[in-house]
Amino acid sequence: MPISANVVLGHGVKIFQPDLVNLYGCTVGDETRIGAFVEIQKNAIVGSRCKISSHTFICEGVTIEDDVFVGHGVMFINDLYPRATEDGRLQTEADWQVIPTRVKRGASIGSGAVILAGVSIGEGALIGAGAVVTHDVPDQQIVKGVPARLGRAVPRKQTTKSAS
Amino acid sequence: MPISANVVLGHGVKIFQPDLVNLYGCTVGDETRIGAFVEIQKNAIVGSRCKISSHTFICEGVTIEDDVFVGHGVMFINDLYPRATEDGRLQTEADWQVIPTRVKRGASIGSGAVILAGVSIGEGALIGAGAVVTHDVPDQQIVKGVPARLGRAVPRKQTTKSAS
Amino acid sequence: MPISANVVLGHGVKIFQPDLVNLYGCTVGDETRIGAFVEIQKNAIVGSRCKISSHTFICEGVTIEDDVFVGHGVMFINDLYPRATEDGRLQTEADWQVIPTRVKRGASIGSGAVILAGVSIGEGALIGAGAVVTHDVPDQQIVKGVPARLGRAVPRKQTTKSAS
Repeated sequence: MPISANVVLGHGVKIFQPDLVNLYGCTVGDETRIGAFVEIQKNAIVGSRCKISSHTFICEGVTIEDDVFVGHGVMFINDLYPRATEDGRLQTEADWQVIPTRVKRGASIGSGAVILAGVSIGEGALIGAGAVVTHDVPDQQIVKGVPARLGRAVPRKQTTKSAS
Repeated sequence: MPISANVVLGHGVKIFQPDLVNLYGCTVGDETRIGAFVEIQKNAIVGSRCKISSHTFICEGVTIEDDVFVGHGVMFINDLYPRATEDGRLQTEADWQVIPTRVKRGASIGSGAVILAGVSIGEGALIGAGAVVTHDVPDQQIVKGVPARLGRAVPRKQTTKSAS
Repeated sequence: MPISANVVLGHGVKIFQPDLVNLYGCTVGDETRIGAFVEIQKNAIVGSRCKISSHTFICEGVTIEDDVFVGHGVMFINDLYPRATEDGRLQTEADWQVIPTRVKRGASIGSGAVILAGVSIGEGALIGAGAVVTHDVPDQQIVKGVPARLGRAVPRKQTTKSAS
């Protein structure tokens, strides 16, 4: 079933193609919109009024605060040394620890970006399309490239205008 | 419904997995082939005899001319400063303007490439796999990298051989 | 049908969302796990005890040995100069040759990586998230970046611990 019974959805959440997503064990806040081909794993938390665009993957350990834009094809990560097996048997959850990642209020993540495990993305920050984010990003800063490097501050007229 | 009633499909369009795509309000030309997990938004135009490979996202404002190859997992973009909310409420279409992008006849876009809003990709150009295209690409040129930089011209035997 | 009748699955293969994958003509080994929104093409071979994460595309010509981890949104490629058409008609399989790619036992490929046609990824190697791999990767080495460059060796405690 593409949306498991254990998903907690706020009021007015809009999932554009409910048969073409894979959500399980996650929490999604009010009025958030979720595109096609999105997967959100258990224990991931998505805030209110977010936009999660098509083809994006949000893994366990990720917390996305309110008013965040996540572009298309964005990949989150929760393990720095992933392996399929351990001592010749399949890895289980006991073999590794989820590294938490946080995206703060009003940030925007460009399409095709990859967000490494353990980073914190600041309020209102802008992650360039296709960036690979390996370090924390300060509030209201733009980063881009591979690995992502600090650019200028977000132009004033483009800062998050969410009412406090 | 994964293929909306308002999609305009030419003759002989082949959609390999009609239940695993999300097409709405777009126009697709004759004989174009579309892979699984593809999303094409309203007001996007795809020409004839194109190949749109799996996992690709084509947004509003994109025009793809005839004979174009789009690889797997390619992401188009139509907004340089995307935000989820504006003054504390969800952004609507009134809050931003679509920036148009054009891919000219016979071009090829490698898998995993990201195409920023507003660029023009020249006839027969080749975009390297994983490139992030931030500027216009001249006809018959190769670009690659992040951000994409001009390489050599397309080798003669690899130029587009579509009959005029 | 998302899983074609001509797919050869080993014992205990786990496909988490059988209605949200596109597998045809491929071979998958015992106990391998396959996420949502995965496409695996004909003549691709995936070994035993692998993990193929969501949104990944594995094309014809790719051989993945046992115990390999493939992250989310990984794109394989089998053609260096893809074109949609040839002399004004659609390309067919007669117009190009599949370039084979091999991922050796126990390797791990980070999410969002792109693997160019023709490369060989060594045993236990680690491909960084978002890397674009254009050359062969030696056994037990880490590569990352665009294009991917050789980093240090895999830390001893992170080497593949699959029993021989």
